[in-house]
Amino acid sequence: MKLLNIVIINGPNLNLLGIRETAIYGSTSFNDYFKQLQKKFQQIKFSYHQTNIEGEIIDLLHQYGFKGKADTIILNPGGYSHTSVAICDAIAAIETPVIEVHISNIYAREEYRHTSLTAKHCKGLVSGFGLESYTLALQSVLNERK
Amino acid sequence: MKLLNIVIINGPNLNLLGIRETAIYGSTSFNDYFKQLQKKFQQIKFSYHQTNIEGEIIDLLHQYGFKGKADTIILNPGGYSHTSVAICDAIAAIETPVIEVHISNIYAREEYRHTSLTAKHCKGLVSGFGLESYTLALQSVLNERK
Amino acid sequence: MKLLNIVIINGPNLNLLGIRETAIYGSTSFNDYFKQLQKKFQQIKFSYHQTNIEGEIIDLLHQYGFKGKADTIILNPGGYSHTSVAICDAIAAIETPVIEVHISNIYAREEYRHTSLTAKHCKGLVSGFGLESYTLALQSVLNERK
Amino acid sequence: MKLLNIVIINGPNLNLLGIRETAIYGSTSFNDYFKQLQKKFQQIKFSYHQTNIEGEIIDLLHQYGFKGKADTIILNPGGYSHTSVAICDAIAAIETPVIEVHISNIYAREEYRHTSLTAKHCKGLVSGFGLESYTLALQSVLNERK
Amino acid sequence: MKLLNIVIINGPNLNLLGIRETAIYGSTSFNDYFKQLQKKFQQIKFSYHQTNIEGEIIDLLHQYGFKGKADTIILNPGGYSHTSVAICDAIAAIETPVIEVHISNIYAREEYRHTSLTAKHCKGLVSGFGLESYTLALQSVLNERK
Amino acid sequence: MKLLNIVIINGPNLNLLGIRETAIYGSTSFNDYFKQLQKKFQQIKFSYHQTNIEGEIIDLLHQYGFKGKADTIILNPGGYSHTSVAICDAIAAIETPVIEVHISNIYAREEYRHTSLTAKHCKGLVSGFGLESYTLALQSVLNERK
Amino acid sequence: MKLLNIVIINGPNLNLLGIRETAIYGSTSFNDYFKQLQKKFQQIKFSYHQTNIEGEIIDLLHQYGFKGKADTIILNPGGYSHTSVAICDAIAAIETPVIEVHISNIYAREEYRHTSLTAKHCKGLVSGFGLESYTLALQSVLNERK
Amino acid sequence: MKLLNIVIINGPNLNLLGIRETAIYGSTSFNDYFKQLQKKFQQIKFSYHQTNIEGEIIDLLHQYGFKGKADTIILNPGGYSHTSVAICDAIAAIETPVIEVHISNIYAREEYRHTSLTAKHCKGLVSGFGLESYTLALQSVLNERK
Amino acid sequence: MKLLNIVIINGPNLNLLGIRETAIYGSTSFNDYFKQLQKKFQQIKFSYHQTNIEGEIIDLLHQYGFKGKADTIILNPGGYSHTSVAICDAIAAIETPVIEVHISNIYAREEYRHTSLTAKHCKGLVSGFGLESYTLALQSVLNERK
Amino acid sequence: MKLLNIVIINGPNLNLLGIRETAIYGSTSFNDYFKQLQKKFQQIKFSYHQTNIEGEIIDLLHQYGFKGKADTIILNPGGYSHTSVAICDAIAAIETPVIEVHISNIYAREEYRHTSLTAKHCKGLVSGFGLESYTLALQSVLNERK
Amino acid sequence: MKLLNIVIINGPNLNLLGIRETAIYGSTSFNDYFKQLQKKFQQIKFSYHQTNIEGEIIDLLHQYGFKGKADTIILNPGGYSHTSVAICDAIAAIETPVIEVHISNIYAREEYRHTSLTAKHCKGLVSGFGLESYTLALQSVLNERK
Amino acid sequence: MKLLNIVIINGPNLNLLGIRETAIYGSTSFNDYFKQLQKKFQQIKFSYHQTNIEGEIIDLLHQYGFKGKADTIILNPGGYSHTSVAICDAIAAIETPVIEVHISNIYAREEYRHTSLTAKHCKGLVSGFGLESYTLALQSVLNERK
Repeated sequence: MKLLNIVIINGPNLNLLGIRETAIYGSTSFNDYFKQLQKKFQQIKFSYHQTNIEGEIIDLLHQYGFKGKADTIILNPGGYSHTSVAICDAIAAIETPVIEVHISNIYAREEYRHTSLTAKHCKGLVSGFGLESYTLALQSVLNERK
Repeated sequence: MKLLNIVIINGPNLNLLGIRETAIYGSTSFNDYFKQLQKKFQQIKFSYHQTNIEGEIIDLLHQYGFKGKADTIILNPGGYSHTSVAICDAIAAIETPVIEVHISNIYAREEYRHTSLTAKHCKGLVSGFGLESYTLALQSVLNERK
Repeated sequence: MKLLNIVIINGPNLNLLGIRETAIYGSTSFNDYFKQLQKKFQQIKFSYHQTNIEGEIIDLLHQYGFKGKADTIILNPGGYSHTSVAICDAIAAIETPVIEVHISNIYAREEYRHTSLTAKHCKGLVSGFGLESYTLALQSVLNERK
Repeated sequence: MKLLNIVIINGPNLNLLGIRETAIYGSTSFNDYFKQLQKKFQQIKFSYHQTNIEGEIIDLLHQYGFKGKADTIILNPGGYSHTSVAICDAIAAIETPVIEVHISNIYAREEYRHTSLTAKHCKGLVSGFGLESYTLALQSVLNERK
Repeated sequence: MKLLNIVIINGPNLNLLGIRETAIYGSTSFNDYFKQLQKKFQQIKFSYHQTNIEGEIIDLLHQYGFKGKADTIILNPGGYSHTSVAICDAIAAIETPVIEVHISNIYAREEYRHTSLTAKHCKGLVSGFGLESYTLALQSVLNERK
Repeated sequence: MKLLNIVIINGPNLNLLGIRETAIYGSTSFNDYFKQLQKKFQQIKFSYHQTNIEGEIIDLLHQYGFKGKADTIILNPGGYSHTSVAICDAIAAIETPVIEVHISNIYAREEYRHTSLTAKHCKGLVSGFGLESYTLALQSVLNERK
Repeated sequence: MKLLNIVIINGPNLNLLGIRETAIYGSTSFNDYFKQLQKKFQQIKFSYHQTNIEGEIIDLLHQYGFKGKADTIILNPGGYSHTSVAICDAIAAIETPVIEVHISNIYAREEYRHTSLTAKHCKGLVSGFGLESYTLALQSVLNERK
Repeated sequence: MKLLNIVIINGPNLNLLGIRETAIYGSTSFNDYFKQLQKKFQQIKFSYHQTNIEGEIIDLLHQYGFKGKADTIILNPGGYSHTSVAICDAIAAIETPVIEVHISNIYAREEYRHTSLTAKHCKGLVSGFGLESYTLALQSVLNERK
Repeated sequence: MKLLNIVIINGPNLNLLGIRETAIYGSTSFNDYFKQLQKKFQQIKFSYHQTNIEGEIIDLLHQYGFKGKADTIILNPGGYSHTSVAICDAIAAIETPVIEVHISNIYAREEYRHTSLTAKHCKGLVSGFGLESYTLALQSVLNERK
Repeated sequence: MKLLNIVIINGPNLNLLGIRETAIYGSTSFNDYFKQLQKKFQQIKFSYHQTNIEGEIIDLLHQYGFKGKADTIILNPGGYSHTSVAICDAIAAIETPVIEVHISNIYAREEYRHTSLTAKHCKGLVSGFGLESYTLALQSVLNERK
Repeated sequence: MKLLNIVIINGPNLNLLGIRETAIYGSTSFNDYFKQLQKKFQQIKFSYHQTNIEGEIIDLLHQYGFKGKADTIILNPGGYSHTSVAICDAIAAIETPVIEVHISNIYAREEYRHTSLTAKHCKGLVSGFGLESYTLALQSVLNERK
Repeated sequence: MKLLNIVIINGPNLNLLGIRETAIYGSTSFNDYFKQLQKKFQQIKFSYHQTNIEGEIIDLLHQYGFKGKADTIILNPGGYSHTSVAICDAIAAIETPVIEVHISNIYAREEYRHTSLTAKHCKGLVSGFGLESYTLALQSVLNERK
């Protein structure tokens, strides 16, 4: 069976996972967690990118957004989720389905986090399960394949 | 290993799944889908309720909300998601964790669906994966158990 | 000629017609008025329901909402007109056409009554003619039949 | 029995009925429809005016607004419905009762059409029944007479 | 001296008093507190109802809302206080005076609790005194009687 | 001493003064009042226009708006005061100073009357003195002349 | 038993009670009512202040706000209730508990009275019982003492 | 003929007239202007007060607000015009008619000056005529007397 | 080659170009500019209309809006751009493409000019190039033809 | 005659022209279109840049923004048009005039696209003519030169 | 070298520093801190005022606002910062530069503190450094002098 | 005494200081000013960065945000101050205290500059003192050290 090509794109501040505010976000760094994912989902070929720059997220969406480049993109846009019309447009423009994930429950935080501009053209949204939000997004792709 | 006790509560209009607007919601009824879930997740003991009445959702949250009654509640509040302070309060009041699911992507629809009052005190939110949103919610519980 | 099957569903507080605020709503109870309707429109087979419970309005819309159950539903959602996404969804989900009626002119009252969430998927809206709003809704069905 | 004096005033763009956007508004011109009305309601003496000019609608409301000039005015203010304080004031100023009609369901269209400034001082509102909205408005006058 | 007929209607989640969030709401259940009230106010004949269903609150207001049924209704609408036009209409429709009580200070909580739709037609509002809010409401009735 | 050239422009519905809603606006028609003004202010040469058409108010402002045409324009824009960017632009465009008058106190009425778009480029505003608002506007011109 | 030290602070316009708008506020002056209170609650040692000046209300809150100065402050902030961040801060800053009272039901009046900035840090709020609102506030203190 | 008793109350910063921002407000101090008024209107007995304190404006309104104290109050509330519910209440509470004046045209300035809370219960509003706004207010009283 | 039929419709106040506010709008009148256009674009047969009346703009749109009447309409709706649902509807109703032009940059002016209701159904918008905005609109038509 | 120096800066997602959503944006890539422009406008020396990064747009505006660097900048800010105060500031800071272009009509799309923060300090705006919007912007520069 | 004349004006509740909420504001009273300032800045002649009354802040601004009275005013308007148009006007009216200081970071607190009406005409704003905010304001004056 | 490690991060357009809009921002470039700072504060070891890219500001905050990297970060986020949730999150995530500075007084400019998203988690804010805002921020660090 062909490996699934899945790209994880992490937006601003997610490079600090496991370092910052560990009471909220836990003490696992994304790199450690990513190794667990690779081990657990051997039917998936992963790519991983993190950037704090809004436009580089768009670059990455374009790079993986067309036929043969990736089967699904898993995107955590961080704070850009609430302000970026440009990322929203990029998701609309590409062919690869995008799943938006958030580590924390965006509805349990400040009111300006209760809406997501970027989710509009995503296939689905998973929010609030901690790092397991990524696992669920991956499982949604595998579930569909069966 | 002890069976997990999981309750699925479906809110208004979800009894019409498979009948209404099949172009959007698919042609599987929730009953058929529920049978698949029961077959697929044999380590789970399911309860299932559907009601169109806001207050009966609250009654059900109370009934399953305390020690020994359920391990997790999976709630699709339908249209009440966007208007019910009372359901929001009920989720805050109980002990059992609640996961909110939506079949469609709430951010891809009318603007008054872009916010969720009821998600505030939920553990997490899964939205937009069709009926598979329920599967993902269940997998999140199983993932945690391991 | 086959009788038309028409269901009238009255929402909250409409059981008090003829009793409450008679200066505004008149002193005819809906039951008396309903008898006049039955007498006047003998080509129609009527069903009638009143409930103060939002979810029971949804139950009734489902019950009469599909092929062979009713030709038209005449709905006065009362105060739920301005707050219920769930009833709005129910009207979108069913097949039977729904006509929304209001006894008073909703634009002549408090500002929060100037909009109707539930009218969105209705066939039409009749507002402000007193109890005659129901008569006009019925006439619209008969006019169409000819 | 004395003939009823009824004036129909059509606002902006309604002269294009039957010509423009026939998929939405149907292919009957208002003139043809008006002839049907005259034939159908022989107990009514009709006047008919159409104008695209807001202030001429006010002129017409004044002209027919006082004792002996008309029994009822049926007004379709078109797009002025959502923006005209001046027409609203004219309806408040005159004695003849005014019924507001809309061909399409204003709640099923853009959000800026969900409210009506002009309906505030009208006797009632009929919206969404196509050209039959006018018939219903006329029937409401006849019903009252009996 | 004739006993006063007073009905206490508790809305959503108030059945959990003494169980949920005891740090905020205290550890007395409403049933225990109700027994104290009965003992303390022997000049009052009490009725008591709790329901999580918005429409059943309306049913109860109708049931006790007219001559000879009750002298005063004490209503804690819980979360429906901030969203229910229909309960607001029911209070306007009945004759029996209604006093709205809240256990917590609604202005010290989330902003969406700072307004009350249901208080509009109430005689008065008591908020923030814990369970003693009910005692004050009762005392207001007794004060008036003297 | 040269006569002052003053134009009074009355907007929509002001032709009904003395006829409509006499409890609010008094029973003097503007024509009668205008004769009193002419008699009282003999040092003024008056022109007077009334129109219900927004664009004709603009035409009149242009006609009297430049050197030698009028010394002051007294404008009661009626309901257009709250909605007309176009009249606002016309006042900005002309040279003749404009004084806005309102018969009633616009702050004592509906909230949508609490602001005036047209007053922005006027010299001053007089509101609430009944028909005497016009007299005050005239006196302001005479006061300045001395 | 030690006398309770209670201060009543009345804000703007409350010196006119019994004089102004007696149809709404009744014809009892606060001075007369205050004598009744003193007579009725002999276990209380009262202080009383009225001022129309926002900052003097703050001065009074400071004066009575600390240990040994008063057991409770009963505050009717009048119109400052809806606009004063500074009084809100003063209540937060002091130790003595404050109870906010309003004579009329603030939810039955203009919309800008539906919120209270000053109630945020108060112990409780009593609104709508006429002058009896003060009595209820006093009873709440006595109830607690028992 | 009896002298008219008229009180002028100037609010915050109006003591700086003729000193501050003379390009906007002119170089006449209010004291000099007041002497001109006294000379010009010999049929009027003037009182004059200026205060920067909101509550003292209320005190003055009360002091002159009842029978025999003043025939009219001319009030320039300055910046309090846009923020003071308490002054608004004071004007509603007293009997003496109040005329609100502004030196500058409030609609030609910042948007937060486009509304006046205090004008609601005034008899009328004069705005934008410079210091002559006061003269016009006085003339309105004299006009009425004739 | 057939001449292009192009209609220019100018809305309110545009008759004052070259006369009013020449610092902003330049000192060329539209008539002079129109002569230049006619000379420069000899492949175009021009019609030109200016009116201050909203409804007459609609009349003109209808007149030129259907097959054979005009190839393109160039519309400067002036201040009606920001307030007219009725003109917006007229553009939607006709077949001839409409290009909206503004002389000034609408985003560099007051906030209420930052949106255009009328542009919604236009083919394109040109704003801010002074009178050259018309030239650009014409060039867009010629560019397309080639 | 000296060649004109013109820079075209394309913002986010415009690198996908001709690839994405060709039904809306057409199947011409910007590169192909750019070659046509170079051929057609031989009196212009072009520079061209595309970036998805907001800050790089600012870098480019600075680079070409001062004397001798460019005669005009043509900017399509894409989605940043609606959210970027920083680009708006950059345009205000530089000397070279900027013309904003949009391929689609921003008023015919979602409401959050109806306003442009970046257009505020531009010379003009061209929107809705497809790729021809760039041609028009170029023609506006050439027109001016003549 | 001439001593600098600097006035510190503290608004509402700042007399409680060191007494109230010491966890937030620290346990130093302003008087103690003021003594430190006097000792530390011997090149400055200080005046100091505290008042809870909005209008007295205006009085003080006037008193020190003109030539020869003070070199700089350091103002902490407390809660009036967010609500006072009148203080804003006073700062605009005087000549002496005003620096606004806040002890806490106004952006880290409730949303209604995120804006400052009074800062508009100030020279600068220092917020969030605790009592050191005053020191920084003083240093800004000294820095400028050098 | 150990040197203090202080990083200055300047956001978009601040590289143009001394070049752009010198009437507002002065004619000193930041580089020249920076040299003055280095000379004046010899007890500080400075780092300096300027970038127009939002995400690079986040990169820099991360780089200097943890133990041993810097003692304080002085950040001028320019236009991103009003729109960037992502920078706000970065400041919350790091340990090094951040002081926000603005050259101009943000409250004296357009309304969309009156709030700062990025200041929320900063230690303090200095705004409006020209380039001296940086000096004050530095002095606040030195003051604290003593």
